[in-house]
Amino acid sequence: MSEPAGDIGLIGLAVMGQNLILNAADHGFTVVAYNRTVSKVDHFMANEAKGKSIIGAHSVEELCRNLKRPRRIILLVKAGDAVDAFINQLLPFLEKGDIIIDGGNSHFPDSNRRYDELKAKGISFVGSGVSGGEEGARYGPSLMPGGAEEAWPHIKDIFQSISAKSDGEPCCDWVGPAGSGHYVKMVHNGIEYGDMQLITEAYDILKRIGGFTDKEIGDVFTTWNKGVLDSFLIEITRDILQYDDVDGTPLVEKILDSAGQKGTGKWTAINALDLGMPVTLIGEAVFARCLSSLKDERVRASKTLPGPQIPKDAVKDRQQFVDDLEQALYASKIISYAQGFMLIREAGKTYGWKLNNPAIALMWRGGCIIRSVFLGEITKAYRENPELENLLFNKFFSDAVEKAQNGWRKTLGLAVTYGVPTPAFSTALSFYDGYRSERLPANLLQAQRDYFGAHTFKVLPEAASETLPAGQDIHINWTGKGGNVSASTYQA
Amino acid sequence: MSEPAGDIGLIGLAVMGQNLILNAADHGFTVVAYNRTVSKVDHFMANEAKGKSIIGAHSVEELCRNLKRPRRIILLVKAGDAVDAFINQLLPFLEKGDIIIDGGNSHFPDSNRRYDELKAKGISFVGSGVSGGEEGARYGPSLMPGGAEEAWPHIKDIFQSISAKSDGEPCCDWVGPAGSGHYVKMVHNGIEYGDMQLITEAYDILKRIGGFTDKEIGDVFTTWNKGVLDSFLIEITRDILQYDDVDGTPLVEKILDSAGQKGTGKWTAINALDLGMPVTLIGEAVFARCLSSLKDERVRASKTLPGPQIPKDAVKDRQQFVDDLEQALYASKIISYAQGFMLIREAGKTYGWKLNNPAIALMWRGGCIIRSVFLGEITKAYRENPELENLLFNKFFSDAVEKAQNGWRKTLGLAVTYGVPTPAFSTALSFYDGYRSERLPANLLQAQRDYFGAHTFKVLPEAASETLPAGQDIHINWTGKGGNVSASTYQA
Repeated sequence: MSEPAGDIGLIGLAVMGQNLILNAADHGFTVVAYNRTVSKVDHFMANEAKGKSIIGAHSVEELCRNLKRPRRIILLVKAGDAVDAFINQLLPFLEKGDIIIDGGNSHFPDSNRRYDELKAKGISFVGSGVSGGEEGARYGPSLMPGGAEEAWPHIKDIFQSISAKSDGEPCCDWVGPAGSGHYVKMVHNGIEYGDMQLITEAYDILKRIGGFTDKEIGDVFTTWNKGVLDSFLIEITRDILQYDDVDGTPLVEKILDSAGQKGTGKWTAINALDLGMPVTLIGEAVFARCLSSLKDERVRASKTLPGPQIPKDAVKDRQQFVDDLEQALYASKIISYAQGFMLIREAGKTYGWKLNNPAIALMWRGGCIIRSVFLGEITKAYRENPELENLLFNKFFSDAVEKAQNGWRKTLGLAVTYGVPTPAFSTALSFYDGYRSERLPANLLQAQRDYFGAHTFKVLPEAASETLPAGQDIHINWTGKGGNVSASTYQA
Repeated sequence: MSEPAGDIGLIGLAVMGQNLILNAADHGFTVVAYNRTVSKVDHFMANEAKGKSIIGAHSVEELCRNLKRPRRIILLVKAGDAVDAFINQLLPFLEKGDIIIDGGNSHFPDSNRRYDELKAKGISFVGSGVSGGEEGARYGPSLMPGGAEEAWPHIKDIFQSISAKSDGEPCCDWVGPAGSGHYVKMVHNGIEYGDMQLITEAYDILKRIGGFTDKEIGDVFTTWNKGVLDSFLIEITRDILQYDDVDGTPLVEKILDSAGQKGTGKWTAINALDLGMPVTLIGEAVFARCLSSLKDERVRASKTLPGPQIPKDAVKDRQQFVDDLEQALYASKIISYAQGFMLIREAGKTYGWKLNNPAIALMWRGGCIIRSVFLGEITKAYRENPELENLLFNKFFSDAVEKAQNGWRKTLGLAVTYGVPTPAFSTALSFYDGYRSERLPANLLQAQRDYFGAHTFKVLPEAASETLPAGQDIHINWTGKGGNVSASTYQA
């Protein structure tokens, strides 16, 4: 029996899977392709795959037989039960040390579980985020692999060859243990929700307060795409605003303003709540989609709920208005990424994952939906200090926010005055002003909790005294007279 | 054997349980008391319970033996496994038709499960929210019972007797099926998070922008407590601000500004994300607690991150400033309750619960932490129209917001300009401005999703055409030339 030729196997021949195979073949790898509906394999082999280093397999067994050891198999199937089903089908044909890579949009707790289950069987599981859509899959996606680290040397060459490149560096590196690859992809998607929401708020402000036409807004985005905001999402927004329907008017204005979602933004927001991290911008972005989808209710509300009139001359200096807005968008985006990396940092602590922060930023730098010049700066910040506590502690970003904050505040002042909703811009500013507050009013909140529920409080170290000892849980009888203080450890 | 004397049994003699027993005894009911550590029963019987219509039980069996049929047993034990453990201990001594009431802070999915499990055994399960703290339990709590409706006639008299009263009406009525009682209690707690956050933001604005002393802020709250904001939380805030430490300075200023939480606010926010309802104010309130708890990080950030200086004369007209702030607080509170009832309404649809909206508002009107005059207005609104789509569609509330919005916007303008964080005020205004927007910029967001992920979009009904058919999922090749339109049902 001759030596098997396959460098890597791939299961799932939807567009993403096909494109990833063609990408790998272009880079000189021999790929074995399998699909549950095998007629799809034949069709693929007879068309797109023709003449390339691609082998069609008609069974899982055939797929495995054609792979070099350790076998490397990527699943690109629907997240959920299908992943477990294919893993179970594969297991009888695998040997210790073989590698299963889930490239789908799996939820990271599932990847944690699969990692453990397969480890017990001697199989290396890798959960890899894949971003960049169909185009990315074909010509260079962002890949975020994590899981069994011993698999990395065996897949590194393939993964880094087919991934996007940024300044010659592959947008793919090892993320960390267990489900951390899918975790990082989840946060990526959450940040994507935030970026999109910020852009739509900027568009809304230009339209409703500035009275800009879509063409003019498109021009603004064209300019922004040459500056600090240079990114894929700004670029496609420019394209969208300049795209006319057959009647010569902007198509985007005909689209129903009711946003869909597939749930990964929601996962990120829920995870942030679970870990106790204030990832407010993603939270607001998810909620903004929810509110948009209540279209009929909003239409009814618009008839009865009053708001301010926006005068034609609300904007005196259009260039200043646009520049202020650019700064508002930039600053809010910095906050969103700072929050996202806070979450990743906390996840590392909570789940016991050693995560590769500079690599995460670099993986997002190219290939994926949130790719941007800006992520190059984040990569630099984390390379300077991989243990950076918060992006806002890096000088480049604190300087950027300092420079931006005047325009940011002015823009929000306009939105508040004229009644244009800015949930993401607003929460970003509130976060910034809260984060840089040595003291927040939570002292009053702790007093309230102690008043009605005897939940106790601690004192500020500088205010500690004999009756208010530092570090202890103190309960006060607030309805009593002053001085009625007792330190206690409350048991509820 | 003589007829048993007990009207109701209660398990769990912590302060809440003891107070509820004393409350019931005061209302002429005979209560059988049991606690796992039975020495606590003896101590209770020899002291607080002495001479009252209270029977001490030393075992679960003795408890059940002393109860009239159908037996009514309230559990006031730690939420979680302890509830299941006591239910299992009780079952051998119960008969069909007996009633188990969980009065703890259980998560509603647990109550759903217990309802089903006990129904299968012929036992009626009631999950009841109990709010009002120790004081409420003793002299009139808010009670929110839901579950097996056949139990209601057997517990109604006791529950409504011991509950708080508002204008003579008991703050207790039947909520709905399964875990809906605990669900409504969860939302109550979420709203409580929101109310508290709003109050702390108002205090922070008075202090940092207005330069008010705590005594002056206390006076403001004293005044507010006589107007539309009249409520328990405003009242205790007044007390707190006027409470001096032994050195004659306000104690609240010595409290560490790091807020704790027990998780029910988080549950509400997660549930809102799960049900796709934009309950943004509770979300921000939870995140604000998270941010406050990053105290050390904030102290470091305060040293490096710049913000605007607040001039001494930032406020020209102090009375106007206070009045505007009162309107900001009132309007934001209306939004928060509107969001809370949106969530309850959606839960009713999603979980198939017929819920009693006017009763829910009335239950919160008195006895509980969020009790207020304001909830009387909500009760009225839902009595006028129990199927009210949104609180903002009720004239009293739309008028109130109309009147409030000028002050609301002015207050937020100040906060934005001078760098005082207002996550809850801000998200409330963004929600209001979004909710009353016939069109939101989600059209652009849908275009982006279609551009990079072929997620398709629908057209506005009024913009439908032959090439853009109404109601269909449409995908465009955005990078192509204008007019390149195809309607398709995308399969991803």
